[in-house]
Amino acid sequence: MKKVAVIGMGHTPFTFAVEKTSVELFAESAMDALKEANLTPKDIQALYLGNCLGDFSEGQAMMQSYIANDIGAFHIPATRFEGACASSSLAVRDAFIWVASGFYDIVMVGGVERAATMGTPLATRTFAMFTDAHYEYTAGLTFPAMFAMLTHLYSHKYGIPLEKLKEQMALISVQSHEYGMKNPNAQFQKEITMEKVLNGFTVCSPLQLLDCCPFSDGAATLILASEEKAKELTDKPVYITGIGQASSGRLSSQKDYLPRLRAREVSVKQAYDMAGVKPEDVDICELHDCFSIASIIAAESLGLADYGKGGELWEKGETKLGGKIPINISGGLKAKGHPIGATGASQVYEIVHQLKGELEEQGRQVEGARTGLTDTLGGDGVICNIILQRGY
Amino acid sequence: MKKVAVIGMGHTPFTFAVEKTSVELFAESAMDALKEANLTPKDIQALYLGNCLGDFSEGQAMMQSYIANDIGAFHIPATRFEGACASSSLAVRDAFIWVASGFYDIVMVGGVERAATMGTPLATRTFAMFTDAHYEYTAGLTFPAMFAMLTHLYSHKYGIPLEKLKEQMALISVQSHEYGMKNPNAQFQKEITMEKVLNGFTVCSPLQLLDCCPFSDGAATLILASEEKAKELTDKPVYITGIGQASSGRLSSQKDYLPRLRAREVSVKQAYDMAGVKPEDVDICELHDCFSIASIIAAESLGLADYGKGGELWEKGETKLGGKIPINISGGLKAKGHPIGATGASQVYEIVHQLKGELEEQGRQVEGARTGLTDTLGGDGVICNIILQRGY
Repeated sequence: MKKVAVIGMGHTPFTFAVEKTSVELFAESAMDALKEANLTPKDIQALYLGNCLGDFSEGQAMMQSYIANDIGAFHIPATRFEGACASSSLAVRDAFIWVASGFYDIVMVGGVERAATMGTPLATRTFAMFTDAHYEYTAGLTFPAMFAMLTHLYSHKYGIPLEKLKEQMALISVQSHEYGMKNPNAQFQKEITMEKVLNGFTVCSPLQLLDCCPFSDGAATLILASEEKAKELTDKPVYITGIGQASSGRLSSQKDYLPRLRAREVSVKQAYDMAGVKPEDVDICELHDCFSIASIIAAESLGLADYGKGGELWEKGETKLGGKIPINISGGLKAKGHPIGATGASQVYEIVHQLKGELEEQGRQVEGARTGLTDTLGGDGVICNIILQRGY
Repeated sequence: MKKVAVIGMGHTPFTFAVEKTSVELFAESAMDALKEANLTPKDIQALYLGNCLGDFSEGQAMMQSYIANDIGAFHIPATRFEGACASSSLAVRDAFIWVASGFYDIVMVGGVERAATMGTPLATRTFAMFTDAHYEYTAGLTFPAMFAMLTHLYSHKYGIPLEKLKEQMALISVQSHEYGMKNPNAQFQKEITMEKVLNGFTVCSPLQLLDCCPFSDGAATLILASEEKAKELTDKPVYITGIGQASSGRLSSQKDYLPRLRAREVSVKQAYDMAGVKPEDVDICELHDCFSIASIIAAESLGLADYGKGGELWEKGETKLGGKIPINISGGLKAKGHPIGATGASQVYEIVHQLKGELEEQGRQVEGARTGLTDTLGGDGVICNIILQRGY
């Protein structure tokens, strides 16, 4: 199979509700990506789009074809991926194979969402349809409830008192805001304190408001190219060297394993094996911190911490710039924002910038990063991991 | 790239509302497909699922991971494709590349929908979100309105008086019911007459009720395998030899071309070129007859009739068994039914049965068929074509 590079990227600010259609919003990041890659819309052979809630946020269920048309990439295949928060990660993984197989040379992939436009109460209720609708959502298991339950399970399983665990979790949110302030695309540009996190209002016990990421509007676009094309178009190619994807049944079917998510362990192993790297080789990681507890659970399954020890990574500052494994230096879903269908592509965007050493000016560059990992969780059933490596 | 074969298939009856979840419904066809392929769920490496309205029909937006789990294909990558009526055609095309590239050897692909469960008025309104939501749906352009408009445009452009065109269209519905009666999976098992079509009630002038396909519940599953695996598992492999996909902008952006759909012409050319066949080589075609006029428009763009002459194919009986190009011998969307996300996979199911010569008993076998073509239109913006050929 051919090597596949990321050769151009675009990213709108992640924000509160915008007065734009999803097509318009995605087109902004698409145009920036084309510009960076020094390409025109006619060079794009196919579009892979992550979008999740278009029907609910603006009554536009199918937008992929209109996007292709409106950016001037007429008549190309345009495919929508819907895997909840992992939608555009799945799109990236899928776009990868179309280029790796030699079928296409240059494709566009990304995601867009106007989740903020819906407002948090409606978005939370609507988004609960991405859990099991028959047995779990009906029992009250929306996503905040799910991660609140996982927090209790984690505390119990690893013998970490809830108050101690909540402090670890609060640290994660504080760190996310610290870096979000340095990221011009981040939705929240403000510092928060441990005290503020721990004394916020309770969303679903023990989760406090600042343990939860927001619903955001935004878009991110990547242009992928075969190695030959990448060499023509850029002298700084970053390659996708590992991909992983796995699924789980509804949460109750995972009960013997929780709070570990077996799908993540299966998925990331695929990515590591394909790239020929180990967790200790990862220089920078963007992981799925939809809730602060989710960061701890993810870091462990990704092999970045021992089980039951994830929180210590943040306590010891290992997840910061200069630490053993910088995590979510973008601000993560918590501070950067979470426009659901765009999140996976945004994670890749961030990693590529880090690997290219382009974040010095923003004061959040991981020095000498050569290998990066993304992690996206869609609902309770879909995991996707992508490993990127500097190719120069 | 490797050759990709269809080695097992399953298909529920297409019906009015069923008392099953989408997961349960899909699982039925999945189990039949596994049985035919003589495989167990553990042999399946990935699932590609077309589904369109799960959130609206049963509050279940993301079901792909639950399906994988519930059929016993634990932790495999499970990806949902949403391209309106073309959802599972896109899933088939995508599953193809994962096998053709050598990444996987055996994958499952299909679609499921409970569109009948929603009831026609709600389904029509909901499904209109798969047109352009900002400029066209808001102007009243639901799908019946869209195809009514195309009927007028067709009549005008090719100088065929509306009354004459309506007779051609009625013939198409009559033929679909004639063959639907022979298909045990078809929703409508009854004869209809020209008189009944022409004197039905008007849905959107000039479309009569029996010019319109129904919304249905149903599922269809295929198992795809690499040539090596296919040779181990079956002595009757049918290969996917051509794939095509293209997109269009909203209908108003296509105005200079209508009633021709440029995307279809682009898509089917890709499929023909890849398979190395010409329209005259096609022995059997399943095309997207969401409305009777859609059959005429499709047949022309697929190269099966000259522009403006599509209706004559049906008038002359060329589309029947024994005719020059048998079309929709399954009963098509009109009589077999249209469970949106399952329709594309169902078309492939039908073609494979025809190529394997397995429909003699049902009295609808196209003698000696070696090359088949599917055509699926998703919304007004997505087209997918698949060419299948007997490999023995």
